[in-house]
Amino acid sequence: MSFWIGQVWRGRMSMLRSKQDYLDSLKRMRPNVHKFGKRIEDVTTDPNTRRTVESHSKPFELADTEGYSDIFTTISYLTGERIMRFNSLMETGEDLIANSRLKRTMYHLTGTCTGGLCVGWNAMNVMWGVTYDMDREKGTDYHGRLESWIIGAEKRGLVVSGALTDAKGDRSRKPSQQKNRDTNLHIRERREDGLIISGCKAMICGVAASDEIFLLPGSDYGEEDKDFALACAVPRDAEGLTVVETRRPSDTRELENGFDTPVETGITQAHLLFDEVFVPTERIFMAGEHQYAGRVIDYFTANYRSCIGACVAGQGDVMIGAAAMMARTNGLPSSTFRDKLVQMEVNNETTYGLGIGAIAMGKRHTAGTWYADPLLAHTNKVHVATLPYETKRLCQEIGGGMVETGCFPSYEDLKSPEYGEKLLDMIQANPGISSETRARAARLSEWLTIGAGVPGCMHGGGSPDGAKLIIRTNTPIEEYVGYARRLAGIKEEVPEVERKKA
Amino acid sequence: MSFWIGQVWRGRMSMLRSKQDYLDSLKRMRPNVHKFGKRIEDVTTDPNTRRTVESHSKPFELADTEGYSDIFTTISYLTGERIMRFNSLMETGEDLIANSRLKRTMYHLTGTCTGGLCVGWNAMNVMWGVTYDMDREKGTDYHGRLESWIIGAEKRGLVVSGALTDAKGDRSRKPSQQKNRDTNLHIRERREDGLIISGCKAMICGVAASDEIFLLPGSDYGEEDKDFALACAVPRDAEGLTVVETRRPSDTRELENGFDTPVETGITQAHLLFDEVFVPTERIFMAGEHQYAGRVIDYFTANYRSCIGACVAGQGDVMIGAAAMMARTNGLPSSTFRDKLVQMEVNNETTYGLGIGAIAMGKRHTAGTWYADPLLAHTNKVHVATLPYETKRLCQEIGGGMVETGCFPSYEDLKSPEYGEKLLDMIQANPGISSETRARAARLSEWLTIGAGVPGCMHGGGSPDGAKLIIRTNTPIEEYVGYARRLAGIKEEVPEVERKKA
Amino acid sequence: MSFWIGQVWRGRMSMLRSKQDYLDSLKRMRPNVHKFGKRIEDVTTDPNTRRTVESHSKPFELADTEGYSDIFTTISYLTGERIMRFNSLMETGEDLIANSRLKRTMYHLTGTCTGGLCVGWNAMNVMWGVTYDMDREKGTDYHGRLESWIIGAEKRGLVVSGALTDAKGDRSRKPSQQKNRDTNLHIRERREDGLIISGCKAMICGVAASDEIFLLPGSDYGEEDKDFALACAVPRDAEGLTVVETRRPSDTRELENGFDTPVETGITQAHLLFDEVFVPTERIFMAGEHQYAGRVIDYFTANYRSCIGACVAGQGDVMIGAAAMMARTNGLPSSTFRDKLVQMEVNNETTYGLGIGAIAMGKRHTAGTWYADPLLAHTNKVHVATLPYETKRLCQEIGGGMVETGCFPSYEDLKSPEYGEKLLDMIQANPGISSETRARAARLSEWLTIGAGVPGCMHGGGSPDGAKLIIRTNTPIEEYVGYARRLAGIKEEVPEVERKKA
Amino acid sequence: MSFWIGQVWRGRMSMLRSKQDYLDSLKRMRPNVHKFGKRIEDVTTDPNTRRTVESHSKPFELADTEGYSDIFTTISYLTGERIMRFNSLMETGEDLIANSRLKRTMYHLTGTCTGGLCVGWNAMNVMWGVTYDMDREKGTDYHGRLESWIIGAEKRGLVVSGALTDAKGDRSRKPSQQKNRDTNLHIRERREDGLIISGCKAMICGVAASDEIFLLPGSDYGEEDKDFALACAVPRDAEGLTVVETRRPSDTRELENGFDTPVETGITQAHLLFDEVFVPTERIFMAGEHQYAGRVIDYFTANYRSCIGACVAGQGDVMIGAAAMMARTNGLPSSTFRDKLVQMEVNNETTYGLGIGAIAMGKRHTAGTWYADPLLAHTNKVHVATLPYETKRLCQEIGGGMVETGCFPSYEDLKSPEYGEKLLDMIQANPGISSETRARAARLSEWLTIGAGVPGCMHGGGSPDGAKLIIRTNTPIEEYVGYARRLAGIKEEVPEVERKKA
Repeated sequence: MSFWIGQVWRGRMSMLRSKQDYLDSLKRMRPNVHKFGKRIEDVTTDPNTRRTVESHSKPFELADTEGYSDIFTTISYLTGERIMRFNSLMETGEDLIANSRLKRTMYHLTGTCTGGLCVGWNAMNVMWGVTYDMDREKGTDYHGRLESWIIGAEKRGLVVSGALTDAKGDRSRKPSQQKNRDTNLHIRERREDGLIISGCKAMICGVAASDEIFLLPGSDYGEEDKDFALACAVPRDAEGLTVVETRRPSDTRELENGFDTPVETGITQAHLLFDEVFVPTERIFMAGEHQYAGRVIDYFTANYRSCIGACVAGQGDVMIGAAAMMARTNGLPSSTFRDKLVQMEVNNETTYGLGIGAIAMGKRHTAGTWYADPLLAHTNKVHVATLPYETKRLCQEIGGGMVETGCFPSYEDLKSPEYGEKLLDMIQANPGISSETRARAARLSEWLTIGAGVPGCMHGGGSPDGAKLIIRTNTPIEEYVGYARRLAGIKEEVPEVERKKA
Repeated sequence: MSFWIGQVWRGRMSMLRSKQDYLDSLKRMRPNVHKFGKRIEDVTTDPNTRRTVESHSKPFELADTEGYSDIFTTISYLTGERIMRFNSLMETGEDLIANSRLKRTMYHLTGTCTGGLCVGWNAMNVMWGVTYDMDREKGTDYHGRLESWIIGAEKRGLVVSGALTDAKGDRSRKPSQQKNRDTNLHIRERREDGLIISGCKAMICGVAASDEIFLLPGSDYGEEDKDFALACAVPRDAEGLTVVETRRPSDTRELENGFDTPVETGITQAHLLFDEVFVPTERIFMAGEHQYAGRVIDYFTANYRSCIGACVAGQGDVMIGAAAMMARTNGLPSSTFRDKLVQMEVNNETTYGLGIGAIAMGKRHTAGTWYADPLLAHTNKVHVATLPYETKRLCQEIGGGMVETGCFPSYEDLKSPEYGEKLLDMIQANPGISSETRARAARLSEWLTIGAGVPGCMHGGGSPDGAKLIIRTNTPIEEYVGYARRLAGIKEEVPEVERKKA
Repeated sequence: MSFWIGQVWRGRMSMLRSKQDYLDSLKRMRPNVHKFGKRIEDVTTDPNTRRTVESHSKPFELADTEGYSDIFTTISYLTGERIMRFNSLMETGEDLIANSRLKRTMYHLTGTCTGGLCVGWNAMNVMWGVTYDMDREKGTDYHGRLESWIIGAEKRGLVVSGALTDAKGDRSRKPSQQKNRDTNLHIRERREDGLIISGCKAMICGVAASDEIFLLPGSDYGEEDKDFALACAVPRDAEGLTVVETRRPSDTRELENGFDTPVETGITQAHLLFDEVFVPTERIFMAGEHQYAGRVIDYFTANYRSCIGACVAGQGDVMIGAAAMMARTNGLPSSTFRDKLVQMEVNNETTYGLGIGAIAMGKRHTAGTWYADPLLAHTNKVHVATLPYETKRLCQEIGGGMVETGCFPSYEDLKSPEYGEKLLDMIQANPGISSETRARAARLSEWLTIGAGVPGCMHGGGSPDGAKLIIRTNTPIEEYVGYARRLAGIKEEVPEVERKKA
Repeated sequence: MSFWIGQVWRGRMSMLRSKQDYLDSLKRMRPNVHKFGKRIEDVTTDPNTRRTVESHSKPFELADTEGYSDIFTTISYLTGERIMRFNSLMETGEDLIANSRLKRTMYHLTGTCTGGLCVGWNAMNVMWGVTYDMDREKGTDYHGRLESWIIGAEKRGLVVSGALTDAKGDRSRKPSQQKNRDTNLHIRERREDGLIISGCKAMICGVAASDEIFLLPGSDYGEEDKDFALACAVPRDAEGLTVVETRRPSDTRELENGFDTPVETGITQAHLLFDEVFVPTERIFMAGEHQYAGRVIDYFTANYRSCIGACVAGQGDVMIGAAAMMARTNGLPSSTFRDKLVQMEVNNETTYGLGIGAIAMGKRHTAGTWYADPLLAHTNKVHVATLPYETKRLCQEIGGGMVETGCFPSYEDLKSPEYGEKLLDMIQANPGISSETRARAARLSEWLTIGAGVPGCMHGGGSPDGAKLIIRTNTPIEEYVGYARRLAGIKEEVPEVERKKA
């Protein structure tokens, strides 16, 4: 029996949202997603977005499959009903560990990031605590609204992406000082029945595959920037919202035939342009309480940086598999590279396990949600920003030059009537494995390490330098000096030396 | 409220063993500890051993002090009495996290390793599960004996070192094939009332400060080596046992006056020579059940390698303090080195937090004890074997050349009537800090990084290469290849390639 | 005055090949280069190849420009005429250092690899020594032929790519044992006037921009594989040769308009399919002397791995510039990241300077050419295979999330009549720098670190594991044991222990 | 034939100073060296200093031995006579490479640092250029004096330690502002026939084994500190000079019998207390020309940091030998650890080869001396400050727990009549290797990695942070931004962003 107690549900499976229902919902939405200057009419079939939709649909597909149902579903603390796990409140360390497990599993299934299953989930849990605090301290009524919204999300099995990062504009000025206020999302108008919001959120994952978007403030704010202290949930196709998907390495391969992009899953990141979008009152969870914006960031990063270790671990697992497979298609035993494979596994388990350590040392907010230990969570972020680079390097080292550079004959060349046959002959290296398999294996490793599958783990959820700043703040230097001083038998104080003026 | 629920005890504090009682017990023992070819008459006063005794006495000294009582004491699962924590069974993840916390605290208080508070504790918890299994599967009655012994240890507050590593002899031969069987501890004779044991355990920590020694098998054994599959507890001064303390870097400074060894705490490692030592039946917990020796190693290393992250973290904390203090005595703000201090903290939190992750992912044995997740525990060992070296390097880099090489005028020179005064003047670098403080600070950093305080974390509890072997065994390569294969749309199998014969 | 003595030429500059002549020659060639299943009619204008041609044309363009003429031209040892440096014999350490300098400069100018200026050059210098040896020991007449070819290449200023790596086929079998002999380039027929050769060389750099290709054996060979011991030079458009350019990350962006590929330079790697290509006698420099194939590899890798440190240093310099520029377009002082920039520079200078150390410790072959020290050269390879990954990571860390993932709005989106203007507003971060500049800067960093500009430095010229094997062979373990033994006052021998049979 | 042309001398060997003459000279000196508060009467026999004297005597012992004569002797540029190499001017890159080779060889022979053969040598070469500049620019006559002194040193084969580092005092004040001016060496009085100097140089290597000490300014100085801009050579036993040797890890073992310090060589570092020492005019090479003090530091560090890579490489070679030997005495094939041994060799060759790269890219001063390239030299320093720590870690990892902690039974215990025999039996691990050999091997690895043999390479000759500062200054950021900008097709300038006021 594990520390993590699987809440296996044993009935009423039919209540969960089906994959078909999920796809149908996306199809029905107003087409407001764009790429390459064109509007995407149906995100579920357009080659620019269908892979990320396919990725996000996996939990619906596997919700009732043994080995996966514990991972993708759980019992609601609010209703006692079985729900998709990514809609659940996380009230214990075990719940948060289950979050990590879900993320690692999603990478196993998709090879990359499914932000719509993760950021909105985290956002709503963060706001569970913060709305509780605001209500208690400020007399607001956000918590109840949020509860209603969550119960709705649970019932409908919503895929909810989350958006913190603003376009920001001039980094040397505060949001309210920007020439163009729209560089940061803000309250433009307060109405009886809700808010009018405008501005831009940037680099948001999984929007094309989401039903809704959970918006959070992007930073700590002062009084003068209180209009930017905004948290709410909006439908992805809200009137006034234009979504522009960014382009990524090798993304146009997804529009081609053949196996140069061998995967059927994918990731997207988008810029969200809000132009006077109306948000009704029941969907608003912070509207000007700037003193709480910093707390949102603190809780968000603590939980996010604990669990992101599972993301890079999951992709690292796939890289182990891809590297071993590549070695074999190259005609070499994968065991030739066992030390490198062990190092990759060490990297994977480090970010996974340290994240779990951060969770285990976390604490429960009075409102019921669990928040991970910030010092350990931010330490994990430092590793998340470095170890995956080593893992990728090892994947490329094992795979060989074609993986390192992504240089390999194209699908079109391998199918050329003139020389395709000959080329296929030339690229076979293991007589028991077909040339196509080798090509697919090479392209997978490329996709994982230098292609469209590389997720944004270093900067996603904030930079490692930001994490180090928090680590510094949390290191009790004077306490440690005290230990050293007592051990050395030093009686006098050894205070900090004043810095000389330059 | 933390994940770890402090079991604060609120009464009957007087029941705990006092420091004085501990010291008196050690004094009363048969003098069988030696160093430099001489017998040590009283380990509590002899300069070769008094520092490690002082170290081990800290928990008795602080058991009733607020901030420490939760760390050093707990409630017995067996009796409901308040006991020293290092005598307790660990039945939950929280108990094992408390073990980590105790270790980190002990390093804060002593700067180095106190093996007598840790290895015997771990050994007895390991045997709690293994004796349970043996009894159930083999019809033996070890578990009850162990329970009685533990209840006794709890009542008396015993300091128990633990011994696994045998002298081993010729590494290319099994224990039973050795020219000299004594290179491995073994059952020499089975008697009605107990066993006669002989042989040698090597490099055992904290023996001089211990009341008893918990002996475990040093390896997995086959049928032919069943006499080596032996677990029992013996008094440190058992008849027939000769303890020879090894010498360590700069150890004779401990015999000098002055502050060239500035600390009053310390560490020892000993070779134990057993020459027909009698062990009565009630102290025997394994006697020939070789099939279980491997399980002992598995459980032992899983828990040990989880918690040892706290040891190196604790020493790393002291190194942060020592480095900051050194910078200041050098006349520089310690904040000059903030990036290096943050890196040290990252290292500390990594091994601490990853160990806690291993604990959190552990599981409870049917007998009640908690065993950490082996994959994460062994991953932690890899970091424990590397990160502290970087931490030491950074401590030396911040401290300067005198720390790096340990080169600094000796106490005797600083006190020289001829030139001592002048020398003291010359070594002062911060006008507000005395020369003696700078000397003590330099010596502390030396002691921590290149002196007698360096603990055996890389090889203690087994080598990192051994850990990597276990990581390799626990990496599901074929499962990972499966993920990769499915993602790449590869239909055919990609089996391992056979290695060519050399 | 530097160690490297610039051989500045002061006259007759008009003799050198012009860029126009170079382009015209390429245009005149038989169109035998293909990509995406199509034949490229004119490599100088086709978007798939024009960037690499542009890259390779830089030395012609700058040959007479101060600050570059010393780098790109030199005086022929054979004729005393001024020639392009990449056609020269390298007879001194200074010549080889000039090779390194040329490579670093080429990266500054093109951002990536120009294999046609480097591999053929190295190949011909390697063969200068090996043909000398063969002639002297075997009575062949290769050396004179090579001299004639080189004089011709010097006069014409030829761009010569070099090809070692064969397609190889089944790695567990020798070339002659392959089911399809064409997996390795070989002599198919020996004729009076030359050879007929067939087979496949894989992953060859810069072919599309080359006048000729210098072919070398891909490995050491035994007697049975003597037909594979083959060195010769062929025109790039030789009858029977089909060139298939491989596809690389984000390569189709080069076919688009706009600035999503912001650079006008580029790299290619190709598979070369030889189908009964005739090579006249005067172009043949090895034809069956398999005993010398290993020597070719030894000399080639020694020089190549010394100088490749300059390649990754040069790209690293550009990454420093790209990172600093990105920081500024992000609105931050680049000095914020000075520690990271210093680390990048440390990496650059390490591979550059260690390569130069290998050159300085090299030796002159009796034939006159300089070969670098293999131990230092292979040590450099180990760093070349690792440090650039750290440099890229730092470039991405400084640049931010858009660099890390390459996620940024596309050119088409930034130009959208509907929302382009708004998007451009949103991506401006430094009020003094235009949005387009920020977009170009982001795309450059992407191109360098996760796009089409990433060169094949880890596996190019052989794997780092191969380098480590040579380092192992060149480490005099017994000599070092001798030092240790004498220092420790050990009188007896300490011979290697025999490995136990598994 | 190597790049480095050995200047093998073939005659008049008897002219060189003999080892006996060297020892006799040391014996004849005024006893002004102290340790542990006592004066050392004869440095050649006192156990505190005899090992370093033994180390420094090696070149005299081996000057005429084949394989060593090229390393330890050369032909004087000044007189054409054969001289000890460490007294020679270095006028070519080859001369400086020979310096590196000498250092690596000295580590092979002694296992540690012989500062008296290296720092004074470097100092005199630095002053060769600086005195030339001063004379030319200031009309002084230092250069001729130095030439005379060097010719004398060459003739007598002097061992000359070098001293830069001052005791410094309060780091926040300049030398002239110190409460106690003696914290920095300075001119106290200018007399007709010379100078009276006072003050303290700290942490100076090899003084006890030196004939003379070459004193250099410890820093760049302004006009107000011109009395500190001082360069001269003094006999080690000058009147008024008190030498206090610092204590090092495990140094008192050198006073014991047995093999707990198994080596007969050693290192020392001393504090030098100058109390009104008279220096005659002909020995003075700078006396107040503060504008040149910075140049001294620049030249000194460039050459020193190039060659110090050879020191750590040489000790690393010995660690490879020690680790391989330890593995064998542990009963394991050293080839078990081949990957670790290769990594150690990679580290050794990196600092050695990069230093040689710095030399090869150096330049000749008008005065004739060769100064290494500062950017590469300081880059090397960064590696010298880090890689040896990894090498030591690997040495400890291979050697096992007894090496890691230095814990092993003492000589006295192994010789105990009571249990010594038994203990010797227990520590034998390879039946073909004696217990004493294993003990000696373990103690050697301890001595190298955590004992008295650890040299001061990180801070010796300045800190790595200082090196990074110089790397930063030498990185042409704007030039690199220019490359990036042009490649990205950016037309506008991208200037540095001004830092916001805090």
